[in-house]
Amino acid sequence: MSMTYSIDDTIVALATAQGLSAIAVIRLSGRDCIAVTQKVFRGKQLEAQPTHTLHFGILHDGERAIDEVLVSLFKEPNSFTKENAVEISCHGSPVIVKEIIKALLKNGARLAEPGEFTKRAFLNGRFDLAQAEAVADLINAETDNARQAALNQMRGGFSKEIQHLREELIHFASLIELELDFGEEDVEFAQRDDLRQLIVKIKGYLQALIQSFDQGNVIKNGVPTVIAGKPNAGKSTLLNTLLNEEKAIVSEIAGTTRDVIEDEMELGGVVFRFIDTAGLRETTDTIEALGVERTRDRMKKAALILYLFDLGVTTPEEIKAEEEHLISLGIPYLKVGNKLDKIDAVRTRQLENDGFILISASQKKGIEELKAKILALFNVNAVKQGDVLVTNLRHYQNLIQTNQSLQRVLDGMDQNVTGDFLAMDIRQSLHYLGEITGQITTDDLLDNIFSKFCIGK
Amino acid sequence: MSMTYSIDDTIVALATAQGLSAIAVIRLSGRDCIAVTQKVFRGKQLEAQPTHTLHFGILHDGERAIDEVLVSLFKEPNSFTKENAVEISCHGSPVIVKEIIKALLKNGARLAEPGEFTKRAFLNGRFDLAQAEAVADLINAETDNARQAALNQMRGGFSKEIQHLREELIHFASLIELELDFGEEDVEFAQRDDLRQLIVKIKGYLQALIQSFDQGNVIKNGVPTVIAGKPNAGKSTLLNTLLNEEKAIVSEIAGTTRDVIEDEMELGGVVFRFIDTAGLRETTDTIEALGVERTRDRMKKAALILYLFDLGVTTPEEIKAEEEHLISLGIPYLKVGNKLDKIDAVRTRQLENDGFILISASQKKGIEELKAKILALFNVNAVKQGDVLVTNLRHYQNLIQTNQSLQRVLDGMDQNVTGDFLAMDIRQSLHYLGEITGQITTDDLLDNIFSKFCIGK
Repeated sequence: MSMTYSIDDTIVALATAQGLSAIAVIRLSGRDCIAVTQKVFRGKQLEAQPTHTLHFGILHDGERAIDEVLVSLFKEPNSFTKENAVEISCHGSPVIVKEIIKALLKNGARLAEPGEFTKRAFLNGRFDLAQAEAVADLINAETDNARQAALNQMRGGFSKEIQHLREELIHFASLIELELDFGEEDVEFAQRDDLRQLIVKIKGYLQALIQSFDQGNVIKNGVPTVIAGKPNAGKSTLLNTLLNEEKAIVSEIAGTTRDVIEDEMELGGVVFRFIDTAGLRETTDTIEALGVERTRDRMKKAALILYLFDLGVTTPEEIKAEEEHLISLGIPYLKVGNKLDKIDAVRTRQLENDGFILISASQKKGIEELKAKILALFNVNAVKQGDVLVTNLRHYQNLIQTNQSLQRVLDGMDQNVTGDFLAMDIRQSLHYLGEITGQITTDDLLDNIFSKFCIGK
Repeated sequence: MSMTYSIDDTIVALATAQGLSAIAVIRLSGRDCIAVTQKVFRGKQLEAQPTHTLHFGILHDGERAIDEVLVSLFKEPNSFTKENAVEISCHGSPVIVKEIIKALLKNGARLAEPGEFTKRAFLNGRFDLAQAEAVADLINAETDNARQAALNQMRGGFSKEIQHLREELIHFASLIELELDFGEEDVEFAQRDDLRQLIVKIKGYLQALIQSFDQGNVIKNGVPTVIAGKPNAGKSTLLNTLLNEEKAIVSEIAGTTRDVIEDEMELGGVVFRFIDTAGLRETTDTIEALGVERTRDRMKKAALILYLFDLGVTTPEEIKAEEEHLISLGIPYLKVGNKLDKIDAVRTRQLENDGFILISASQKKGIEELKAKILALFNVNAVKQGDVLVTNLRHYQNLIQTNQSLQRVLDGMDQNVTGDFLAMDIRQSLHYLGEITGQITTDDLLDNIFSKFCIGK
C-alpha cells in the first residue's frame, strides 16, 4: 500500500457497518469535500453553512434522486481529520450506499484506504501516533476493560507518560551534548553521579510501563487457553459447560452476541479464548497424528493450559509423566481432574493436596472453583479512568529497546567511556521513544499501522 | 406486540448495522430525549443549542467515561419523528454501543420496538402509511429499480394517486348522501348517467394501478425461478454458469456482496432467485422421493421455470410428455436443451422451431440467448423518478377490494337499487382506500406493518 497524502484528495468511505439497517453513514474528508458533496446534493448551499450543522436534502446522481439524506458539515480545523469533512446519513441499504458512493466517485472523490481518516488526523496533528492506534483498539475492544484502556490511551494518558520520559531524556542528552561541544577542553558539565541517578530514575518509569504490559496485553488481547488431555478426558464437554454458562451474560442486550466468536468467554473483565484440541495420544493414524501435532503446537503458544485427566482411568504414574511434560513447556497450567464421581474420598483428598482442581464437566460440578483458579492466574483489576497501561506490542517492544539503550549508557558510565559514546545511546533511546508517539516515523511504519484499521476510520 | 404510544417515552436503539466499524449511531426520540442524553453527556448544555447542530463531548455512565461522541440535535417538530430527537455517533464497537445504551436506559430511556421511530413519524403526521411502508422498502431494496420505486412511494407519488382517487369518490359519495337526506322526497340530485361515467373513470385509474403490481412486484420481490429437469440434465452446472457470470457485476464496490444471497442474479434491474432442485424422476428411494416432491412443490410456487432437457439422452416422446406436465402447471416456463454438442444440425433446427433454447451449460454456450429470453418474459422498464408503481401486496389487495366495491355500485345502478345501497358500497370502497394511506387504521394493522421494520428505524 502506498498512501501519498494530498489535501487535494477528497476521500470517501462507508463509516458504519455493512448490512441492512435504519441508517448508514458515508464519510468524506479533504479540502474540497464540501464542494464535491454539493455536486450531488440538492438542498441548501453547504459552503455557506456554519460548521457542525445538519442539512436535509436529496442525494442525486445526475438527474436521478438516490435518497433523502442528512448531511453533517464539519469545517476545518473543526473535524476529526482537521480538514473539511462531511458525513452523509442515508437509509441503511447496501444498494443506496453503493449508489451514493458511486455518485461521489464520479464527482471527484476517491475511495479511502483503510485507516486513512485517522492517518490524516495524525498527520494534521489532531493526536500523536499512540493515540491514533488507540482509536483502532477502541473499536476492537471486546470487554469493557479493553474499552477503558483504549479510551485512556486515546485521550492521551499514555502519550503524556512517554512525553514526560522524553523530556527527562532530552534534559539528560542536552547536558551530554554540551559536554561534547567543549570536548577538546575535557570539561564535564554533567556530573556523572547526577547523570547516573537521572538514568536510574528514568529506567524506573520505563520498568513500570514495561511491566504493565503483562496486564495490558491480557486486557487487550485476551488469554489463549488450550484445553488439552488424553482422548475422552472430557475436553469438549468442559468447553461447552464453560461457554454455555457464560453465554447468557454476553447477550444482556439483544444483538450483541452476533459479533462474539463462538469459543470465547469473558471472566472478570478478561476474554478467555478457549481452544479445544485433539486428544493427546501416540497414534499410527496419519490424520490423527496431525491433530495431535497441532495440539502440541497450540499448547506451546497458549498463555494457559487447562490439562484434563480422566480420574476414572488415569494411573498415578500416567499423571506424573504427563505433568512432567507440562512443566517442560514452561506455560502456566492447571491440572483438572474430571469425572470426580469415579474416585473415593481418600483419593480426592490426595489429589486436592497435589494441586488438582476436581470437577465433573458433565454434571457441572466444580466449575465455579475452576473459574476462580483461572481468574487468580490472570488477576486483572478493573481499568479506571486515567490508568496508564501498555497494551500495544509495538509500544512494548520500543519501551524495551529504550530501556536497553539506557542500560548501555549506564554500562558505558561504569566503563568511563567518553561523552560521545554516551550521547549515541541516549539518541538511540530517544529514537525508540519517539517512534511510539510518532515524532519519528517512516512511511513503512505508518502504512503498517493504518492498513490494519477498518475502512472508513 | 403492544405499542401504546406515549410522547413521554424516550425510545432508544442502535440505528446502524451491528458489527465492528468506524462509527455507530444510537438514536433517541421523545419529548425528554435531550434531557435524558444530557444526563450522560459531558459537553455543552444541549437544551440551549439550536436544532440541527452537532456537539462533541464525552458519554458517561456515572463517573465512568465510555467514549468520545458527537451528538446531533433535532428539536421538535424538525426531526424524522417530529419529536425531539438525538443521534449519538460513537466509535463502532459493540461493547461501546452496549455500554452507551445501558447508560441511557438507566437514565430514563427505554428500548425502541422495531419500526417505532417510523411509527411515531406516521402518528405525528410526517407522512401517511404508504409512505411509512416505503421507508422499509427503501432499506430492503435489492436493486436500483426497487430503490427508485420505494423512493418514489416514500416521497408521496403513490399517496397522491390514492388521494386523487379518494377525492373523486368523496365527490361521488357526497352526491349520493345528499340524495339520501332528501330520501322521502324521492329526489335524484345525482344524475345516474353522470355517476356511472364518474365510477367508470375511477375504475380506470384503479385498473392502471392494479396492473402496475405485476411489474411492481417483480421489481420489489424479484422472480423466484426454479431450474428443473431430469437427473443429470445439467441443472447445477447451469446455475453455476448463470451465477458466476454475474457475480463480478454485483461486487463492483468492495463489500457489497456480503449481503447478497448466494443464489441470486440481477438481470436488467430484476433480481432472479434461482432455486436448484432435485432431478425429477420416479424413484423408490424415500429420501430422493421427498426431494422430488419438494421440487414439484417449488415448481408450483415459481414465477418462472427453466426446464432443462439433456439433449444427448432425451427422446422426442419424453420431451412431449414432460412439456405436457409443464403446461398443466400454468406457470411461465422456458424449454432449455442442454448439451447442444450432442445433436446434429437437423435436430438443432427442429428443436429451435419447437421453441427450445439450446445451450451448453458446461461450455457456456447459448447463455446470453437464454438470459435474453428470461428478460423478455419479465420485461421491466427502468423505474424513473415520479413513476407510480404498486409494489406492496397489502396495497394491491386493498385496490382490488376497492375495485370490487365500485363494481357493486355499477351493478346496483344497473339494477336500479336505491341510493342507500349505493352509498354503502361507496363507503366500503372509501374504507379500503383509506386503509392504504392510513386515514383508517387499527392497532392490529399498524402493529402488523411496523413490527416487520428493523430496530432503530
